Amino acid sequence: MKPLSKKLIAMLLVLVMTLSLTGMALAEEPAKEAKYVFFFIGDGMGSPQITATRYFLGTLANPDSPFPVPAELSFTTFKSGGLMTTYDSTSFCPDSASTASSMASGEKTLSGVINYDVNKERQFKPVTEYAKEAGKKVGILTSVSLDHATPAAFYAKVPSRSSYYDIAVQGMSGTTLDLIGGGGFRYPTGREKDQKDVFEIAKENGFTFLNDNESIRGLKPEDGERILMIAPDLAGSDAMQYEVDRLRIVEEGGDSLSLADFTKSAINYLDNEEGFFLMVEGGKLDWACHANDAVTTMYETIALSDAVQVAVDFAQEHPDETLIVVTGDHETGGLTIGFATTWYNTYFGYLDNQNISYEDFDKRVTKMREEGLSFEDAMAIVKESYGLTLEEGQDLTLTATETATLKDAYTMSMLPKAQRVIGEKESFMYGGYEPLTVTCAHILNNKSGLAYTSYAHTGLQIPVYAQGVGAENFLGFFDNTDIFFSMMSAMGLIPADSVAAK
Amino acid sequence: MKPLSKKLIAMLLVLVMTLSLTGMALAEEPAKEAKYVFFFIGDGMGSPQITATRYFLGTLANPDSPFPVPAELSFTTFKSGGLMTTYDSTSFCPDSASTASSMASGEKTLSGVINYDVNKERQFKPVTEYAKEAGKKVGILTSVSLDHATPAAFYAKVPSRSSYYDIAVQGMSGTTLDLIGGGGFRYPTGREKDQKDVFEIAKENGFTFLNDNESIRGLKPEDGERILMIAPDLAGSDAMQYEVDRLRIVEEGGDSLSLADFTKSAINYLDNEEGFFLMVEGGKLDWACHANDAVTTMYETIALSDAVQVAVDFAQEHPDETLIVVTGDHETGGLTIGFATTWYNTYFGYLDNQNISYEDFDKRVTKMREEGLSFEDAMAIVKESYGLTLEEGQDLTLTATETATLKDAYTMSMLPKAQRVIGEKESFMYGGYEPLTVTCAHILNNKSGLAYTSYAHTGLQIPVYAQGVGAENFLGFFDNTDIFFSMMSAMGLIPADSVAAK
Repeated sequence: MKPLSKKLIAMLLVLVMTLSLTGMALAEEPAKEAKYVFFFIGDGMGSPQITATRYFLGTLANPDSPFPVPAELSFTTFKSGGLMTTYDSTSFCPDSASTASSMASGEKTLSGVINYDVNKERQFKPVTEYAKEAGKKVGILTSVSLDHATPAAFYAKVPSRSSYYDIAVQGMSGTTLDLIGGGGFRYPTGREKDQKDVFEIAKENGFTFLNDNESIRGLKPEDGERILMIAPDLAGSDAMQYEVDRLRIVEEGGDSLSLADFTKSAINYLDNEEGFFLMVEGGKLDWACHANDAVTTMYETIALSDAVQVAVDFAQEHPDETLIVVTGDHETGGLTIGFATTWYNTYFGYLDNQNISYEDFDKRVTKMREEGLSFEDAMAIVKESYGLTLEEGQDLTLTATETATLKDAYTMSMLPKAQRVIGEKESFMYGGYEPLTVTCAHILNNKSGLAYTSYAHTGLQIPVYAQGVGAENFLGFFDNTDIFFSMMSAMGLIPADSVAAK
Repeated sequence: MKPLSKKLIAMLLVLVMTLSLTGMALAEEPAKEAKYVFFFIGDGMGSPQITATRYFLGTLANPDSPFPVPAELSFTTFKSGGLMTTYDSTSFCPDSASTASSMASGEKTLSGVINYDVNKERQFKPVTEYAKEAGKKVGILTSVSLDHATPAAFYAKVPSRSSYYDIAVQGMSGTTLDLIGGGGFRYPTGREKDQKDVFEIAKENGFTFLNDNESIRGLKPEDGERILMIAPDLAGSDAMQYEVDRLRIVEEGGDSLSLADFTKSAINYLDNEEGFFLMVEGGKLDWACHANDAVTTMYETIALSDAVQVAVDFAQEHPDETLIVVTGDHETGGLTIGFATTWYNTYFGYLDNQNISYEDFDKRVTKMREEGLSFEDAMAIVKESYGLTLEEGQDLTLTATETATLKDAYTMSMLPKAQRVIGEKESFMYGGYEPLTVTCAHILNNKSGLAYTSYAHTGLQIPVYAQGVGAENFLGFFDNTDIFFSMMSAMGLIPADSVAAK
């Protein structure tokens, strides 16, 4: 045979190397990193809230279907995800400060504590600081006030969540944040109104303050070195409007920013060559659950889903560089799909009769009290707001027991607050809420086949939905502290093998 | 240069092929198949039941811990798993017949229907039939009666789950089953007691009937062509004892088979060269939730966990051939961890005061009624069984409201059943259960920080835990119908790409 030429030997060697490298490449996917990370938190959003919303929307969309049809939310079609435990160092039923800290920083702590250990001495370093050091821009959006526990865990460190002013000051230092938006500040000049205005501090540290729908919707990167944007039409507790109220405002011809609007603007502003980390909180979902207001809860879930959809649309343009994670910090209210008197049935269509949040209905109750409305006249307003009625033969006709319960609640709600005697029973029935309002919610929930067991947080595991680069870190069963490691690993900031969830 | 020898060229080519094949092998893992498949169903076991049990056991095991400590169950350490929807063609709150059919056969159907379509015409073919055709042995274990809906979905096809006799006859035909065990038969000779005895049919079709602890525990492959084994000490509804009662029996020196005992024997019997498919149901977990009996529910969860542990031990000897899947068919009772009056606290240690199931306590109530016991004397028995007491200053001292509620329940329970007037309120308070019993459970649950909202099934998503060959089929979010495809794929009976969950 002819001797092989050098060229042929070289070609053969190249072939050997190519094939083996190909094999290795196939075996180990090249490590992709999440340049863009979206972390959505539905405060108080557990599996019941998500599933109830899917079934509510599915029922509304398929009124004539002989079979139950669930709808999908933007994130319930994500293929990856799992379930996490949420207990903190105080309780199996944790609070938002500790749970947000655990997700942000990977460590457990006490209820009420933000990014400090259980001794309130050692500080935690949240994922946002690492992202910032890695060159990413950092944005925070929330429907509640900007200094509330959940957003705070992504930019502040305080031994007590009630240190609103300190939290705001840390945020407005601009060391971590490039953008923050949604609600306002609880105490911009401190509880005693004797501190330097956080808006002034913000300005000194390069924040441009936007406070109208047009400039927030039109936000561009060149609008400032840092952005602080607050919805102009804040509701109670310096939070954004409830989605169910916002929809009513829009239906009546008004304008009000949605969480999706904020998300769109944040992306426009934050997008850059080094990527970004954007945390978006649907914070009022929790409050609606505290108030046992299922309809408002579900509209908050929809608002969060709409915000996630904005990220999903962005990810379609950056499929190999984007991670989207959607979860809750804990469940609130002990919501379940099923009630003692509806048995195996649900009547989610009934829920469509409610068109107002408990917060806005409270205002109607205050007016009733001021005007000294009779029970019959009050019931006309109840019917308009919840569909509940004394008229015979309607879907939502009150039973004798329900009527008695609602009348008791009306009676107490018509008393000035100082004159109300709150015993064991009233505490259980009303949980500190306006009796007429919370009772309307309870009755409508129950007639529809929904129920709450608590006015506080519960200890359930919470589903985590993930899509994109590093989504595989969120599979299976894990703890809320693993969220930090999984996000860090997705961004390539810690080795992949430090992730617990597989 | 010296010409390359033929030998060297051959070596180089082998090297090329080896390296490229190695690469391919690394890239595509050789398709392993699950020779042994364990499918555990906790009837009514959702995330709340599992999590509550973990927190209950963790609290008992760590009485002095300053921090909440969850315990693990045998399957909560499984790394793989996800969440599934369970709605059926009748309701978002489905029943066990349809949900078991969906998991067994991959199709949705109406509540009450077993392996028939919604028109009750077309039959489904369950995974067990495919497994049998593939040469595997098939075993079914359940703590409830063998002809109950959940086990039936793995060996029978009937338009109505209440056709207990037909179900039993189909099972005892021996076409699918090599082994079945646990509870008994509801109507072995039919509802009218005019049909051929199913035990006789079983015998004709090669079943050996075992009915004592010793022969069941000692079961060997040579004991018969097919095995029918029924616990000798059946409780109500031809079911096995509740675990909490079984533990009391054992503590008092008696003997009673556990679900784990049955699982061990089933494995000993079924193990063979072609492998097996074993479905094990913790069926009374559901019943305990219907009765809002949280302690009994948690002991049933523990009993299921112990049975899973037997499979885990087996899998350690067959790691590359075994798949274990643990899930529930639906949630029952709307259990939550958190209650209106305990707020963010839980007192799971209190639950340790209950040492009896609602079923056995019902017997004590019957005796109270027959003996005409006073409320005070009844309360002594209540204290012994649940820890609840009228004595001042105890952990479980009843409040004024609780005392009134319990006295109402006592009063109704002391009436002969025919004389009880059940109105709207009583229906809500007692759900058809013995008033005193269910009220004791409610009060103990609530004082401990647990609560139910319903006496029926709910619409929650259910966690699925998986370990072993094909466990990756159960990751993320999916529907209960996907369970069939994921198990089929794990056994290599359908292509891997027909699995929805990734």
